[in-house]
Amino acid sequence: MEIGIDSFAAMMSGNENNAISDALAMEQLLERIAYADQVGLDYFGIGEHHRKGFLDSAPTLILAAAAAQTKNIRLGTAVTVLSAADPVRVFQQHATLDLISGGRAEMVAGRGSFIDAYPLFGLDLDDYDALFVEKLDLLLKIRDHETINWSGKFRPALRNQSIYPRPVQNPFPVWLGVGGTPSSFARAGTLGLPLMVAIIGGETHRFRPLIDVYREAGRKAGHPEDKLKVGLHSLGYIGETTEQAFESFYPGYAAAMTKIGKERGWPPTTRAHFEAQAGPTGALLVGSAEDVAEKILRHAKALGGISRVTFQLDTAELPHSTIKDCIGLMGKQLKPLLH
Amino acid sequence: MEIGIDSFAAMMSGNENNAISDALAMEQLLERIAYADQVGLDYFGIGEHHRKGFLDSAPTLILAAAAAQTKNIRLGTAVTVLSAADPVRVFQQHATLDLISGGRAEMVAGRGSFIDAYPLFGLDLDDYDALFVEKLDLLLKIRDHETINWSGKFRPALRNQSIYPRPVQNPFPVWLGVGGTPSSFARAGTLGLPLMVAIIGGETHRFRPLIDVYREAGRKAGHPEDKLKVGLHSLGYIGETTEQAFESFYPGYAAAMTKIGKERGWPPTTRAHFEAQAGPTGALLVGSAEDVAEKILRHAKALGGISRVTFQLDTAELPHSTIKDCIGLMGKQLKPLLH
Repeated sequence: MEIGIDSFAAMMSGNENNAISDALAMEQLLERIAYADQVGLDYFGIGEHHRKGFLDSAPTLILAAAAAQTKNIRLGTAVTVLSAADPVRVFQQHATLDLISGGRAEMVAGRGSFIDAYPLFGLDLDDYDALFVEKLDLLLKIRDHETINWSGKFRPALRNQSIYPRPVQNPFPVWLGVGGTPSSFARAGTLGLPLMVAIIGGETHRFRPLIDVYREAGRKAGHPEDKLKVGLHSLGYIGETTEQAFESFYPGYAAAMTKIGKERGWPPTTRAHFEAQAGPTGALLVGSAEDVAEKILRHAKALGGISRVTFQLDTAELPHSTIKDCIGLMGKQLKPLLH
Repeated sequence: MEIGIDSFAAMMSGNENNAISDALAMEQLLERIAYADQVGLDYFGIGEHHRKGFLDSAPTLILAAAAAQTKNIRLGTAVTVLSAADPVRVFQQHATLDLISGGRAEMVAGRGSFIDAYPLFGLDLDDYDALFVEKLDLLLKIRDHETINWSGKFRPALRNQSIYPRPVQNPFPVWLGVGGTPSSFARAGTLGLPLMVAIIGGETHRFRPLIDVYREAGRKAGHPEDKLKVGLHSLGYIGETTEQAFESFYPGYAAAMTKIGKERGWPPTTRAHFEAQAGPTGALLVGSAEDVAEKILRHAKALGGISRVTFQLDTAELPHSTIKDCIGLMGKQLKPLLH
């Protein structure tokens, strides 16, 4: 099983405590990616957000800088908000990243969990699904053919156009990043794309029926079993002990969830709620390496097998040195337990 | 005077001789940028092209990788084809690059000398000037204000939108990259933007009247003299001696110019033509460091002063080691002569 990290490049210049400049936050993020590579983690993903509080509106730039400072780790997005982007530009950026990294680039294409990109790029939320379907179609055509003819509703047609550069990897890895929408799971299966499932709350095993929808759609479309890979993205944090992990993680997690909850209409987060999420069947991957490894294996079994798990470590707004310690434990303790 | 290099990230995988993979070409380009930084050059620019033969369709990705491997050199585009891009994305990318590089990023915005971007992004060449004017206006608004209201013809309106991340530098440096169009020189002056003039053929001093248009427009608009900077971009190559430089540079230069000339209706390049261009008043910066330094000072005087000169070294398709030697001579011999 591959172990990785996803980061949304938190902007900390506006923090009440431990504020640091955006340039220093970027430097520390790049240092963490390089460290993840050194300790042997398999993947580092950068999100895409278009709002105050995040530095990742241009994630492939951060990944390109990381590519120059790493040797083995695979680098991708988490997720590319494809609905709001031009697939031609997105492909050019990822192909360039693939050249820079010597074939270590990936893309997780999704619709995004925030909606800021829609007004920013003049898009209508009524087209939420249609935009994604059309843009994914174009992206995969560009990936699979150097020269294409294409027409659609949301972008000017391409007549015998060639897109450069071409990536090192062929086919270039494109995952579908999904939340809880059943049609998204079916779409990924039908297209034979690997599936990255974000499970950031509730009980992880409850996603099994949706993953079955994915595998079933994939089989029906005739894709071989080994193409139908499932990855799991969850919030997490590894400490020296489970107790220490809980104590370090909870305060920042509660504050962050309560803040997002205000926008989305969730109730404030309580300690009891956190402990349920951090318990044996909950979505949070918080604890000692041993406890979390056991939990990941439990989740993997419940979901019918997973090939990658990525941790979102930024949630609790922990200081750089604490996150680095966590990355060290992920490489040195967690990874060997899951190999 | 600042000394720099501009590269268009030549794709060499299709070359008849000395073909190398695109990944190796990218690795060598990044190595040259790191070397340019080590020998003390001031600037490295990456172009933007959307055609076979170039690896720079996403120039800010290459610059982000370079930023991670350099300490002092300033990094920018040469040029960003702003007419065909979304200024929001372009700003996000450059702001991210500025964070990654710790405030060493720049942009040279232009209309591009090839027209491939127009059909690729569904644009009409009839809008060549209107596109640039509108997009530059939006770009500068985003640069100067975190939250903006804007509407135009070629992009959806922005209503009270904030664009992130914000760059380290304020204002973020935006140059105008121009060829020979008089209205472009006047526009740069009126806006008080530094001017990057591409002079790739003919006699450099003949651009003086256009540069006077720039300075006059700038003065009329009330911009202080020190904001009205002029940079010069030319094809060049420094050898140990002028004879050696001519012998190394000519064959590849003639082949490349003849090839582009076929598309643009120029006659084939001859040795006599080359020697005129490489002579005292011609545009080519080819020769020994001493001869080229003298020539640059002559050009600077003829143009009323220049603050930066950038060399396009890729034209003659010289091997990586030869270009590296040239970069070494630029840092160790040419730069001290122009300081």
